[in-house]
Amino acid sequence: MDYKEHIAIVENWPKEGVQFKDITPLMDNGPAFKAAVDDIVTYAKKRDIDIVVGPEARGFIVGCPVSYALEIGFAPIRKKGKLPRETIEVDYGLEYGQNILAIHKDAIKPGQRVLIIDDLLATGGTIEATIDLVEQLGGEVAGCAFLIELQYLNGRDKLEGYDVLTLMQYE
Amino acid sequence: MDYKEHIAIVENWPKEGVQFKDITPLMDNGPAFKAAVDDIVTYAKKRDIDIVVGPEARGFIVGCPVSYALEIGFAPIRKKGKLPRETIEVDYGLEYGQNILAIHKDAIKPGQRVLIIDDLLATGGTIEATIDLVEQLGGEVAGCAFLIELQYLNGRDKLEGYDVLTLMQYE
Repeated sequence: MDYKEHIAIVENWPKEGVQFKDITPLMDNGPAFKAAVDDIVTYAKKRDIDIVVGPEARGFIVGCPVSYALEIGFAPIRKKGKLPRETIEVDYGLEYGQNILAIHKDAIKPGQRVLIIDDLLATGGTIEATIDLVEQLGGEVAGCAFLIELQYLNGRDKLEGYDVLTLMQYE
Repeated sequence: MDYKEHIAIVENWPKEGVQFKDITPLMDNGPAFKAAVDDIVTYAKKRDIDIVVGPEARGFIVGCPVSYALEIGFAPIRKKGKLPRETIEVDYGLEYGQNILAIHKDAIKPGQRVLIIDDLLATGGTIEATIDLVEQLGGEVAGCAFLIELQYLNGRDKLEGYDVLTLMQYE
C-alpha cells in the first residue's frame, strides 16, 4: 500500500519552513491504518518482542494497536509529571525545543525484548531518550518502528547498532 | 476478567485527597489489555460504528486498538495547538483545571456513527466537550466507552440520552 497517499503535508507548521507530515488522514482511513499497523506487527513477530514501548502521544496511536495485536503489554513514555508512580527520567532535545521524558520504574523487567514505536523518526532525539530509558530499566531494544522517516534530518545516525523499520521515507 | 486487579490506586495524586486510578499495570499485561479492548470491540459491533474518536493521550491508548480491531478510522481529539490543519475547538472544565480541546474539521463526516472512547469517566467534562465537537461536525454519538467510571463524581449525569459502557466502576 502507498501510505504516503494518506499523509497530509502541512506547510510552515509548527513553525516557518517546516513541512509537517500529518498522519491523521491515515488514521482516519480504517483499512490503511490497519495495514500500517499490521506491517509493524509482521516485523515484530520476527523479532520475538516481549513488550511495546511508545512515547506520548502519537507513539500511543501506533504502538497500542501493535501491542493489542501481539497480545503483549504496552509501556507508555510520558512527559515529566504525567505518570503517577515512581519513574526514571531523561532530559533530551527535540526538533522544536527541550523536554523531559519519564517511564514507570516497573514498566519493563530486566531482559525483556522491547519494540519501541513512534509515528516519526526526525532528528532522533525522542527515540534516543526512549532507548536510554528502556536500557536503564534493563530492557533490550530488539527493534524500533516508525510510520515515517525524515531522512534529511539524519535520525538514523543516532540508531546505529539498532534494528529499524520505517514504512515511509521522505528525502 | 476482574480488571480491577490490574489497576494501581495511587493516593494523593495528582493532588491531596485524590485516589488516582492508574491503568498502566493493565496496559502492561498483554492478555488483560487485550480482553478490555475486546470487551469494547464487542460493544461497538452491536452499535454499528463508523469511526472511533478519543481525546489525548489516554483515549488513544484504548481507542486506537479498538479502531484497529474494527478496521475503521480513529479521529484524535487534542489540546489546542497540537493539530496541524483546520480545527474546531471547545473550552471545558476538567477535574483538575481548565482546557481547550480541538478536532480536525474533516475528521468526521456528517451522519457518521461515532464511538467515543476514553480511559476514565470522572466528572464528565472531557466527554461532554468531546460530544460537543463530534456533534458540531455532524457526527452521531452512537456510544461512549470507558475503562473506568468514578461513580461518586457523577459523570453519567452529563451523558443522559447517550449509550454508555464502563468496564470498571468505583463507588
